[in-house]
Formats: sequence, structure tokens, C-alpha cells
Amino acid sequence: MANQIYSLMARNTRNKGVNPSLAAERQNKSFNVERLTNLLDGGEELTQRRRQVESMIYSDPVFSQRNNYFMSQNQRYEAAVRKSVHCKKLMKQMGWREEGPEKSYMYRALGGDTAFNIHAVFRRALHSLGADEQISKWGPLTENFQIIVTYAQTEMGHGTYLQGLETTATYDASTQEFVLNTPSLSATKWWPGDLGRTATHALVLAQLYCSGTCHGMHGFLVPIRSLQDHSPLPGITVGDIGPKMNFEQTDNGFLKLDHVRIPRENMLSRFSQVLPDGTYVKKGTPQSNYLTMIVVRVQLLSSEFVPPLMKACIIATRYAVVRHQSKIKPSEPEVKILDYQTQQQKLFPQLAMAYAFHFVNNSVVEFFNDAYQGIISGDTASLPELHALSSGMKAFISDCCILGAETCRRACGGHGYSLLSGLPSLVTKLSASCTYEGENTVLYLQTARYLVKSYLQIQSSQDSESHKVLPQSIQYFASTRTDRCPAQKAVDFLNPALYTEAYAHVAARLIRNSADKLYDLTSSGTDQYVAWNQTSVLHVQAAKAHCHYFIVKTFAASLRKLENEPEIHQVMKRLCDLYALHGLLSDLGNFLHDGYMSGAQADLATAAYLDLLPLIR
Amino acid sequence: MANQIYSLMARNTRNKGVNPSLAAERQNKSFNVERLTNLLDGGEELTQRRRQVESMIYSDPVFSQRNNYFMSQNQRYEAAVRKSVHCKKLMKQMGWREEGPEKSYMYRALGGDTAFNIHAVFRRALHSLGADEQISKWGPLTENFQIIVTYAQTEMGHGTYLQGLETTATYDASTQEFVLNTPSLSATKWWPGDLGRTATHALVLAQLYCSGTCHGMHGFLVPIRSLQDHSPLPGITVGDIGPKMNFEQTDNGFLKLDHVRIPRENMLSRFSQVLPDGTYVKKGTPQSNYLTMIVVRVQLLSSEFVPPLMKACIIATRYAVVRHQSKIKPSEPEVKILDYQTQQQKLFPQLAMAYAFHFVNNSVVEFFNDAYQGIISGDTASLPELHALSSGMKAFISDCCILGAETCRRACGGHGYSLLSGLPSLVTKLSASCTYEGENTVLYLQTARYLVKSYLQIQSSQDSESHKVLPQSIQYFASTRTDRCPAQKAVDFLNPALYTEAYAHVAARLIRNSADKLYDLTSSGTDQYVAWNQTSVLHVQAAKAHCHYFIVKTFAASLRKLENEPEIHQVMKRLCDLYALHGLLSDLGNFLHDGYMSGAQADLATAAYLDLLPLIR
Repeated sequence: MANQIYSLMARNTRNKGVNPSLAAERQNKSFNVERLTNLLDGGEELTQRRRQVESMIYSDPVFSQRNNYFMSQNQRYEAAVRKSVHCKKLMKQMGWREEGPEKSYMYRALGGDTAFNIHAVFRRALHSLGADEQISKWGPLTENFQIIVTYAQTEMGHGTYLQGLETTATYDASTQEFVLNTPSLSATKWWPGDLGRTATHALVLAQLYCSGTCHGMHGFLVPIRSLQDHSPLPGITVGDIGPKMNFEQTDNGFLKLDHVRIPRENMLSRFSQVLPDGTYVKKGTPQSNYLTMIVVRVQLLSSEFVPPLMKACIIATRYAVVRHQSKIKPSEPEVKILDYQTQQQKLFPQLAMAYAFHFVNNSVVEFFNDAYQGIISGDTASLPELHALSSGMKAFISDCCILGAETCRRACGGHGYSLLSGLPSLVTKLSASCTYEGENTVLYLQTARYLVKSYLQIQSSQDSESHKVLPQSIQYFASTRTDRCPAQKAVDFLNPALYTEAYAHVAARLIRNSADKLYDLTSSGTDQYVAWNQTSVLHVQAAKAHCHYFIVKTFAASLRKLENEPEIHQVMKRLCDLYALHGLLSDLGNFLHDGYMSGAQADLATAAYLDLLPLIR
Repeated sequence: MANQIYSLMARNTRNKGVNPSLAAERQNKSFNVERLTNLLDGGEELTQRRRQVESMIYSDPVFSQRNNYFMSQNQRYEAAVRKSVHCKKLMKQMGWREEGPEKSYMYRALGGDTAFNIHAVFRRALHSLGADEQISKWGPLTENFQIIVTYAQTEMGHGTYLQGLETTATYDASTQEFVLNTPSLSATKWWPGDLGRTATHALVLAQLYCSGTCHGMHGFLVPIRSLQDHSPLPGITVGDIGPKMNFEQTDNGFLKLDHVRIPRENMLSRFSQVLPDGTYVKKGTPQSNYLTMIVVRVQLLSSEFVPPLMKACIIATRYAVVRHQSKIKPSEPEVKILDYQTQQQKLFPQLAMAYAFHFVNNSVVEFFNDAYQGIISGDTASLPELHALSSGMKAFISDCCILGAETCRRACGGHGYSLLSGLPSLVTKLSASCTYEGENTVLYLQTARYLVKSYLQIQSSQDSESHKVLPQSIQYFASTRTDRCPAQKAVDFLNPALYTEAYAHVAARLIRNSADKLYDLTSSGTDQYVAWNQTSVLHVQAAKAHCHYFIVKTFAASLRKLENEPEIHQVMKRLCDLYALHGLLSDLGNFLHDGYMSGAQADLATAAYLDLLPLIR
């Protein structure tokens, strides 16, 4: 079957070169595409390096994705292992560093169709949570795949609520060992990638018990398979959890531990340690163990969320200029579907969003890098803001990327339903992102908790000096602002300062509203926890508005850096305007609610928005 | 691998009977569940018949779905054929009629995992478009699978725009034959189910040419595979189009025709005919050939769209009472996730929507049955309304079902991503529904065209008598209404008359607005077709508001029929209120826009909505 289809496709595309409709579009552009590419890549030299990597990937038969959609799960897994080992060889051969950009270029070019991805998460966890001697011991072993380690946190019955994890690690001072155990079916580790068939070791997140006291979740390196014949070690039950919506190449697995003993040295001990006699020594804050999750969440934006959205935009936009359907005027030929306003309304907001997320990712990574150095050296002042921001961005951006990619998929009609379009796998892969590394609703509530707390602190402090040192992402809480949108004509809505302020107004109002509702309930005697639950829908809404504001603000701020590139600035500005207005009109109720905007202004915004579509076209 | 997983699951569920959390929930109900079941089924006797069918399906190993997710596409296809043949035998054995309810009970119990589904579409097309002698000739052959026929309309480069179909059927008077031909690659028939491997014949929709004149799209029965050895006949190139997001059991295929000749009698000729000398005779309206699509769209609601949503609601709600996670109060045990307001906010609106669609489907089917009899006998007066209503309902309900099922899937966290939860396949199956049988945006625009036309007619007619005979679904255009929502307290929003009127107000305003914008553009000299395109985003929005109003109105009207069942009426009324308020709050901007509602009223609606959640819980 595969061959038959490929031969049909090959006849259509290969022999004819670039589709003439596509070629015509490419002639017709207002800016230097190469220059924009360089800006997005972070410089001309990085564009070159990326292209070098991509051309090596695309020309090497080991990396071929040609038959992906015709393979069984087993074949996909084996191909992924083969590709990853080949990547490793290529990196050695080319002298590319582990931390260099080439690795992520390879990953992106392969569409994440690789193995050992959780092994890489472990490596990050080791560097965040491991003591120096642990890093020097296990780092080199993992770098060369002498051991392959999965990160085993989620259990069959426990995900988000880490305090509820049931797996135990009980210290036995008589042998200086930890005893790892799965006390019930629901405590079975469930989902870790690389676990089903690959891993030799697992970093097991478990409740630490010393001398009868529970010290909460800690990480333990547990050998699970023989380094001789790869069979499960005594006390270990391990396997694959079966088929999923996507990730056929990944062996997500389950793991049961029956009183498995490991040496005392196998607890990751940068932030806490168990002494030989069972004394528990704390060296960091209780939040330190969450640091790996923050690291992973930030990296997900650029590795897992935004690239599939970008790919979906590219596929759908190209399709929309190649596909002709129906007529606008009966006397003229069928038109490119991108000429329909409804098609532009589907695709352009996704394109604008992809750019928004590109710039926001840069900004979040920058903030993270600053904060991370401090945290690792023991200064945790920025941890709450970092946690709130990374949680909110992970949730909001993954939600939007799923929706955006699905909108692109649908915009390709029936062909978007064929796996061969590439779109379904982008969507089903993104579909997992609302769940893994923190369920999105739970993450919004984490962000909301920070926002409510900060809001109440500002309320209770009348000191305007202390307002000036507010963390950057919530400085807008304390700004004075107008309570009416000043727009008088459609073009006023193309002013980033105007719409950024509108988003700030809405976010601040919703945070105030959810905090006030919470306060009203507790003041009238409702238990504080019950009151939180009864207002949680409002908190989620407020957290989303905060995230949306942050993104609009960041996109608008990024424009300023492009001012010496007038042509690129113009097109990016239009995308920024479109992103902001699309969001405003999609959530119009919140802008109209307190009269900040009027219905007449909403009509102006709609007009401005619809006028942007042909400009971007 | 399959066995390993099943044994884990079996240990957990089989031996312990019903999960205690679930059993406790079932004790705690406010109404007679059996009575509601009977009402939904259409009577006690139908409930019994349904259960009889289901118990036969679930106990018969041929119908087992046990290994579905571990099968290859090939195995899925073969199992589907096996199941369908077995169904047929069962029907004969039990004496169930083709038109009886048992057939759809079987289909629903099998989750649509059957073959020959497009064969069934052909059978409907034959009865709508075939002359009586064609029905008597081919009807019995198709009933017993002596011939298997697919419905081949969509082409690789042409879907929605039927006038753009490229396949030709040219009449040759010298031999009294039609010559069917695929003139280009993009004219290849693409997507028809049952075509890839199964069908012996295809109903090919092609442009009819007689004596050099094109008469538009008509249906032709074309033999494509040998009845002896099933090999493709001369001039036929046929095969499978490859892997899709779902429908592994269906052999969606492609078909190229190289000057294939068929007898004159093979054109379906209820509404038009070609005489031996090549004279084209029209017997119906030009719309008649679209009748099959209307029939199919109406049937899709109850066969393809609503049942998967219902199943997703059931799975996700059960999961939410079985899964415990995190604590509301720190001093208490982990709670059922259904106790979280955010979880209720995810699931209950979907549940309410499933009930809304159940009642709307009944109403649409009733309207359709009345209209269909008229149309078949030549009275096409109700065709425009039927077309507009069925197009809008197909688009709106499929859009909502996809979103609803996906919301349920996500509400199950990681387990919702495992195919074994059943949720991913419900979602990926529904994902196709926004495209097949009319791309949804195109359908909304069809509805909008009817709405704008009707609106302008009413505008130009000052005769209030003629307003009284407006088609039922647009009677609200002509009602006089208040321009302020009268709600003063939260409980006022639990009044169906109040919120139905609010939906009517919004729909009427948006239709007026899009029609006025269109008028403004054409008045100022814009070409009418260009103007339509430039207002199409507004038309789609108006059509959605109209559909939403129709559903709220119908759900509210259905409540009145339940008034002699007070307990069931109470719970259905709460779901109706929830459905209406959820929609209102999700689309709040449109209710606030012209001051129909105020921000303060929106807060009352939010309070009413949030108060409903624990009541439904």
C-alpha cells in the first residue's frame, strides 16, 4: 500500500518542482526573508549551522521518515533508537557539544522522533538535584549510554499531587540502604518514557522515610534491569503501558518495586541528605525538588510546543495557496483558498501566535537563566515568580498550541485528516502537552495562587516604594490606569500601548475579582480551602488573562528591538496587532464587562482586525 | 504486550466488582434512572429491545473489541468486515428489519466499528435519487451484498464545491452509453469509504455532458471490480489512500476512470434522465441532487456525532468519581476529582450539551421527516429551510461534539491519552466530522446565506401577515423584543424564557449586522461577491449564533414535555439552564455588546452558573 501511495505522490510533486501557485506567492513579499530567518535563528551564523545540520539529517537514510506512518509501534521504537544512536555518533564525529545548538536542531528536524528523551530529562534532574560527586559519577555514564535512566514520578493513581505519591523509600540504617517499595496497584509508576523497554535505571521519586518520619518526595537512582542481559532485576516488574494517541516511538512504561534495596549514596543529595545513622539533613528549601520540573517546563516551550505549531502553520498556509476551490466571482476561475476571508481568519491568527510564542520563549528563557543561577547558588528569592511564570506559560502556551495546530489541520479539509499530511501527528503529539509535566488546570491554579497572594500583599501595603520593587511580571498590578479605553477610531487599535493596557486592565480586574470573591467567602465564614475550591473557576480565568497579557506585552516589547529593520518591523507589527486583536475579540466579554470598552469600540477593533487580514495576506 | 496489560487491568477491575466510589455515587440520585432511560430511548419497550441487542453484541466473541488497539490497519479492516457480515446474519436470524431500531442499536454498541457504511449511504442515495425501476433492480442486490457500492463524490482537488468536480460522464448516443473519465490527477476520486478494497461498484458523481452541453453533477453506477475475482475492471485504477487519524477499519480509497463505459440505464434518474438520443430531461429542481447530502447530514447527528460525545461524558464522569487526587482541606483525605469546581466546570457543560443535542436531534428528525415526504413527492417549498437547518446543525453540533469529547479526554489526565481509555478514538473519530459531508465553515455560510436572504425579505416586506408564515426556525426574526435583559437577580437566569430570548436577541442582532455590512459594501460599489467574501467572518459568526439559539430554544421546549415527570424535569431543567448559561458566558461579548446585558447581570449569570455545578453534582 505504502508504495502505491508514494508513487502517486511522487508523480505529482517530484517531477514538477515547486508548485506554480507557491512559487508565485514567494515572489510576492514585502521583506527580506533571509534577514528574518537570521533574526529568528539568533544570527546569520546560527542559520548556517542549522541548515548544515538539517541537510545532514535530510540526506542521511538512517534518519528517513519516509515510512513512519506505515510502521508498527515496534518498528517506530526501533527506528527511534537507531536514529538516536546515529545522532550521537554524528555529534562525536562532528565535534558538536552536548550543550550546543546542533543537538536541538537535530531534534527539531527529526520532529522529536527519537529515543532516550526522558534519559535527557534525568540528566537535567541530575545536574539540578545531584551533589557534585553524583554528577561526576553518573554524568559520564549517562552521556555515553552506559546506563540509560528514566525519570519515574507519575503513578497510576497519582500525578499532579506529589504529596500523594505512594511509592516509599525507607532508610535502613543497619545496612545503609534505602528500601524502595510499591505498596499498592495505584502506586505503580505509570507513563515514564524509556521505561517500558529501554532503561537500565530509574530515578524513582518516592516518599522518604527515616526513623519513622516522612520527609516528602525525594529522588532515588534505582537499577531496574541487568547490565548483562537487560532482564528485570529481582523485585522489579516492568513493561510497556500500551498504545497511546501518539508517541509510538516512545516506550512509556510501568514499574513496580517489591522492597528493592539501593545504597544510601543513590539518593540525589544536592538539597538534602540522609546521614549513615538515618539523620535527615536539609540543605535547600522545600521547593528545591521542584526545580527539575521548572527547568523542564521552560525547555518544553521551545522544544515541544512551539515547533509543531510552526510546522502546522507552514503546512496549512502552503496548502491554502496550492488548493483552489470554488469561486469568489462566478465569472472568474476557482481561487486559492487563502483568498477567502474565513480561511485567513483561521490561519493568520495561528501564524501570529507562533511568532508571539517565539518572542515570549526568548524572554522566559532569559528570565529563567538569570533566576536559575541564583537558585542553584542558594538564593531562592525569584523562585516563586519563576514557578508562577513557568507554570502559567507552560499551561497557556500548550493549550494555545494544541488549538492552533488543530485549527491548521482542519483548515486543510480532508487532506488534514490523512496522516500523510503530517498534521494529525503534530496535533496528537501536542494533545499530550496539556497533561504532561503538570496538568494545565492545576498549573493555572498555581499561577493564580501567586497572583492572589501578590495582589493581597499589595493591597495591604500602602507603601508605594515597595510597589516599585514588585517582581517584573506583576508590576502592572500597581500601575495607575484609566478605566476607559481611549480608542476613537479603528486605527487606534493598531497601537501596542493601547491594547497592552487593555489586556493589563482585564487581567488586573479578573485577579482582583477572584481575590475579592475568595475574601468574601472566607469573611462570611467559609473554610479557606473550601472557599478556594468554590472560586477556582474564577482563578483559572484570571491566571489565563494574566498569561495572555504577559504574552501581548512581551510581543509588543520585542517589536521595539526590530526598529532598525523597518520592513521586518512592519510585518511583525501587523502580526502582533493581529495576535492582540484576535485575543481581544475572542474574549470580548471581559473587555466590555466593566465598560472599559464599549460595543462601538468593539466594532472598531473588529474592523481593524478584519482589515489586517488582507494586509498580512 | 497486550496480554500483560490486560492481566494488570483484569486484576484490578474484574475481581473487585464495581468500584466502591462509583457504587456510592449510584446510590445517591434524585430521580428514577430507569424512567429517564426509557424516556431517552423513546419508551420502555425500546429500552428492552436495545438491551437485548446490546447483550447479544457484548456476549458474542465475533463482536469482541478486546484487541482493537493492538491490531494493524489490515486486521481492523478484516475484523470490521467479519462483524458486519455477522450482524447481517444475526438480523436475518432474529427477523430484524433493515429499517428497525435494532440495526442502529448494533451500530452504536459496536462503536461504528463496522464495514460497508458507505454502501449504506449508497442505498439511501438510491432511494432518494433512483427511479423506481432502479430501486427494484439494485435495491435487493445491495441488501444482500451481491454488489457492494461506494459513494464516490469527493476528488483529490475538489470537495465542497460540487460544480468544480472534474470527473466527466459524456453520453455517447451511438452506443447508448456514458463514458466516465478522470481527466487529471486532481480529479481522482479520493476518500470514499469501502472503495479501497471492498466495493464492486461506485456511484460516481460526475459532470454530465450530453451533445456537448454540461448539465452539472449527476450520479452514475459504475462497476469497478470483477464479480468473479474482485480484480479491477479495465480502465479502473483503484486503491487505498493510506493511514488516517482514525477509521482504521475503513478502506477509504482512490479511483481513476479511464474512459469507462456504462449503459445509459446506470444514471440515477428520479429527477433527471438522458433519453436514448441524448436529450436531457429534467424532472426535479436543481437542488434534488443535493437531497442525499441532506439525508446523510440529518442521520449523522444521531449516528456519528452525539453517541461518541455521550460515551466520552460517561467515561470521564466515571473516572472523575473513581480517581482521587489532592486534598481540598489539608486535614482530610484526597478527594474525588469530581468534587473540584474546575472539574465540574469541565464535565457538566459537556453532559448538558449531550442532552441538548439528544433533544435537538429528535426535533430535527421530526422536521426532516415531514419535509422529506413533501420533497420526494415534488413539493420543494421547505427545501431551503431544511437545507439551512441541516447544514447549520451538522456544522454546529459536530464542532461542539469534537470540543466536548476532547474536553472529556483531557479531564482524564494521562489516562485520557492512553488508547485503552477509549477516549482518544472517540476524539479522533469525531475530528473527521468537521470535514466530511460538508466542511463546516462552508456549511455555516450556506446557513448564513439563507438567514441573510430571509432577513432582507422581511426587511423589504412591511406586511405583518407575511411575517406570520415565516418558516419556523426563523420566526424570531419578526418578533418584537425588549432591548434590555430584564434579569435582576441570579435566579432570574434560571428562567428558560429569559435566556432563550437573550439568545434570540444576539442571533437577530448578528444576522442584522452581517446583512447590513454586506449591504453597506455593495451600496458603496463593492462587487456583491467580493462583498460577501469580505463579510464572511461575520456571516459565520451570525450563523453560529442562530444555531446556538435554535438549540437552546429546542432544549427549553423539550422540557415542557417532561412536566409530568417532576424529578426528571428538575434535573433536565438544571442541565438546560447550565447549557444555556455556559454558552452565554463563553460568548459573553455578544450579550454585552449593545448593552442588552450589563456587566452586573453577567456577574449574576456567573453566580447562577457556578451555583448549578454543585446542584448537578
